[in-house]
Amino acid sequence: MSALQKATIVGGGVIGGGWVARFLLNGWNVSVFDPDLEAERKIGEVLANARRALPALYDKVMPAEGTLTFHDDMGEALADAAWVQESVPERLDLKHKIHAQIDKLSPAEAVIGSSTSGFKPSELNEHGGRVVVAHPFNPVYLLPLVELVGNAETCAKASEILRSIGMYPLTVRKEIDAHIGDRLLEAVWREGLWLIKDGICTTEELDEVIRMGFGLRWAQMGLFETYRIAGGEAGMKHFMAQFGPALQWPWTKLMDVPEFTDELVDLIAGQSDAQSGHMSIRELERLRDDNLIGMMRALKKTGSGAGGVLNTHEATMPEPAIDDLPVTVDRTIPQSWTDYNGHMNEAHYLEASAQATDRFMAMIGADADYVAAGNSYFTVENHMQFLDELHAGDRLKITTHVLQGEGKKMQLFHCLYGENGQLAATVETLLIHMDLNARKTSLPSEAVAAKLATYAQEHAKLPAPRGVGRHVGLKG
Amino acid sequence: MSALQKATIVGGGVIGGGWVARFLLNGWNVSVFDPDLEAERKIGEVLANARRALPALYDKVMPAEGTLTFHDDMGEALADAAWVQESVPERLDLKHKIHAQIDKLSPAEAVIGSSTSGFKPSELNEHGGRVVVAHPFNPVYLLPLVELVGNAETCAKASEILRSIGMYPLTVRKEIDAHIGDRLLEAVWREGLWLIKDGICTTEELDEVIRMGFGLRWAQMGLFETYRIAGGEAGMKHFMAQFGPALQWPWTKLMDVPEFTDELVDLIAGQSDAQSGHMSIRELERLRDDNLIGMMRALKKTGSGAGGVLNTHEATMPEPAIDDLPVTVDRTIPQSWTDYNGHMNEAHYLEASAQATDRFMAMIGADADYVAAGNSYFTVENHMQFLDELHAGDRLKITTHVLQGEGKKMQLFHCLYGENGQLAATVETLLIHMDLNARKTSLPSEAVAAKLATYAQEHAKLPAPRGVGRHVGLKG
Repeated sequence: MSALQKATIVGGGVIGGGWVARFLLNGWNVSVFDPDLEAERKIGEVLANARRALPALYDKVMPAEGTLTFHDDMGEALADAAWVQESVPERLDLKHKIHAQIDKLSPAEAVIGSSTSGFKPSELNEHGGRVVVAHPFNPVYLLPLVELVGNAETCAKASEILRSIGMYPLTVRKEIDAHIGDRLLEAVWREGLWLIKDGICTTEELDEVIRMGFGLRWAQMGLFETYRIAGGEAGMKHFMAQFGPALQWPWTKLMDVPEFTDELVDLIAGQSDAQSGHMSIRELERLRDDNLIGMMRALKKTGSGAGGVLNTHEATMPEPAIDDLPVTVDRTIPQSWTDYNGHMNEAHYLEASAQATDRFMAMIGADADYVAAGNSYFTVENHMQFLDELHAGDRLKITTHVLQGEGKKMQLFHCLYGENGQLAATVETLLIHMDLNARKTSLPSEAVAAKLATYAQEHAKLPAPRGVGRHVGLKG
Repeated sequence: MSALQKATIVGGGVIGGGWVARFLLNGWNVSVFDPDLEAERKIGEVLANARRALPALYDKVMPAEGTLTFHDDMGEALADAAWVQESVPERLDLKHKIHAQIDKLSPAEAVIGSSTSGFKPSELNEHGGRVVVAHPFNPVYLLPLVELVGNAETCAKASEILRSIGMYPLTVRKEIDAHIGDRLLEAVWREGLWLIKDGICTTEELDEVIRMGFGLRWAQMGLFETYRIAGGEAGMKHFMAQFGPALQWPWTKLMDVPEFTDELVDLIAGQSDAQSGHMSIRELERLRDDNLIGMMRALKKTGSGAGGVLNTHEATMPEPAIDDLPVTVDRTIPQSWTDYNGHMNEAHYLEASAQATDRFMAMIGADADYVAAGNSYFTVENHMQFLDELHAGDRLKITTHVLQGEGKKMQLFHCLYGENGQLAATVETLLIHMDLNARKTSLPSEAVAAKLATYAQEHAKLPAPRGVGRHVGLKG
């Protein structure tokens, strides 16, 4: 009997599979009910992508995966579920049928969410159900947003759970067709179809307009904050006065819906083939995920948008446990740390070691507050031995041995261990305590000095690590 | 008399200032004509942002800035211009008046572009002018997109120039009100205004929907390629069959334009203040630029979207000149390389050194083709001395001294020099030649071995650099 929480996913496919991955990789047990004989294979493919991508967002190790099970019996799948997520096709009669069964067979306290983009809670619940809309965005295992609509109490409970698995729940204030995101997407899609149909641009050109232009603004700030900047010091009011009147201009064909003829479908499908047909969907997915990881990791630096969600979620993950030698890093290696040799680049060995130094500093009290108060350690010298290759997706652990911890000096010896526990690198590093305001060397606080001395005394009893004091090219 | 090309910017402001920065930082001379007494101050502010941001996108140093001049006389401003960019307010009578003067006073071979979003070339040129629309996106110094509309020959000439300053020109196939990008933006803006007015969400919530969800997809792939993936293996046709019918659903209020009452303006301006009022516009601009740099640098890794434009542009920048010791890196330090101590993080000293190693490898013929053929050098050991702090925006130069270049071994000593020529760090690095397929050590090709030996012999005549053979903590 596991103490883990359990989520039940009703309906697999790309969205259902994304939910499976999101819960499972955050340490939940997951049961799946889907009559599709292909469900296990399809979910397996989404999971393979997610296992490659999601851990790369974090600088700590994620929880151990829960257990994934598939069931032919809905009651069995739903037993003990704390979250039930329905992602079946968008037909109201089907949704009613499924939700009647979920109501009957799931625990009374379970949150029941529907991935629907097309239906409102009042429609889903017209026969007295208790489902809330929990509408995610693809890929569900990477993008944080979930639109929640429905009963306020359930939405509050759902928000807490979604935050705990690294998502960003947004409770919509009033129910409305298509919620918020898909209304915006629909507006662009419709306008885009006209532009293609009228021969103003191709699908590829339209995509370039987005990704070379406003797409990069929206990924970090959205629409209104971007426009606030465009207004200059005078702000939003000024922007509205400038831009508002344009709304009256005949800039769109929005009043009309393009007819969905075979001709239009062929035109768009043909242009899309010309644009992207040289890559398979799997390749496109991986490119998309690599780019998402790279951009989201960049946003972690400023804490904007998805970067802020990642920082908050990461802070809830436990620090590595303390052993006889402290484990100062325990993480997965992201794709973006690899280079043309197909392995982790040397600079990222040092980035991981710098994270180990930071973590060790926090352990002796030289933490963010200490730095904010104007004290820190600066690295003055490193020696690195590269002993084994490390690869994207590998788990990396670092232990830290204190060689010296007296006065202004702190000398550490980090050992980097790979996926199978093999020693992959060592980093010997000498740091000097600094007064950040004077930019001069200084003594650490008494509390920091005392904790550092304790580690130094304990570690002095251990054998000296192999490679201490080496210079580059030393034989043997 | 300078051999540099010259651009004339007519009309300053945020967009005009962005054009000034884009040309100037890419080595053009720039003259400005703007009767606004504040023009010089305003352009100076945009330039300050651009100088901080644009060089951070590249891993090479940008060209030396051209000369910036301000003129009260339009003829003087336009003399010898190869590019004239008009960015005056969106009033057709004003545009006609200005373009009549530009036509008369500018060189016949100059490209004349207008930043207009509201007017078509046929409107701008109805009195026989020769202007093309060259519509950029804010911030012009970072975002690559320029929509070109008008005379095909002029657009082709304009494209070449825009590419040479790192932009992405997209020639629109037929003229249409608002070109392409602003039509898409208009569709979202209009739908967004309804959502705010109807109390479905606030400006902040709407921005979260975009940046936590589809914004991150659009920044790298746009709309159609993203949807192609959503269609799964069945591709775009399948996606259209699934999603197409939704167009007939009443998901938008697009048929209607919200009335621009004071009440609506106050509602939106008030919500925007609540959302972003804790930051000044300058702070928001810098946050935006830092995020753009981080995301665009991440996209360089895969070459997607703006990352591909950067890679192409960077390839046109000259490699560092070869001195008695080869200069293997010459670049600006990006914000994203700094840490909580307010200076460049140690891992990025090594990242820059790894770039120096890569460049030196290319110089001896161990280049991308050599690696693709299954040969490379792997780092086995480093020693690093940190001698001075480096900061965002500093120019960084690295020289490379070959200590050993025989058999499988290559031992290099990189010296990192800061903004004022001071020695900021040294990196001694030992590399071993590898067979990438066998993942075993091997001998380099004869051509590579010969070039490496030549450098090693030449450098052996120079004094040994200070710090060779040091181990960590060695005195003196």
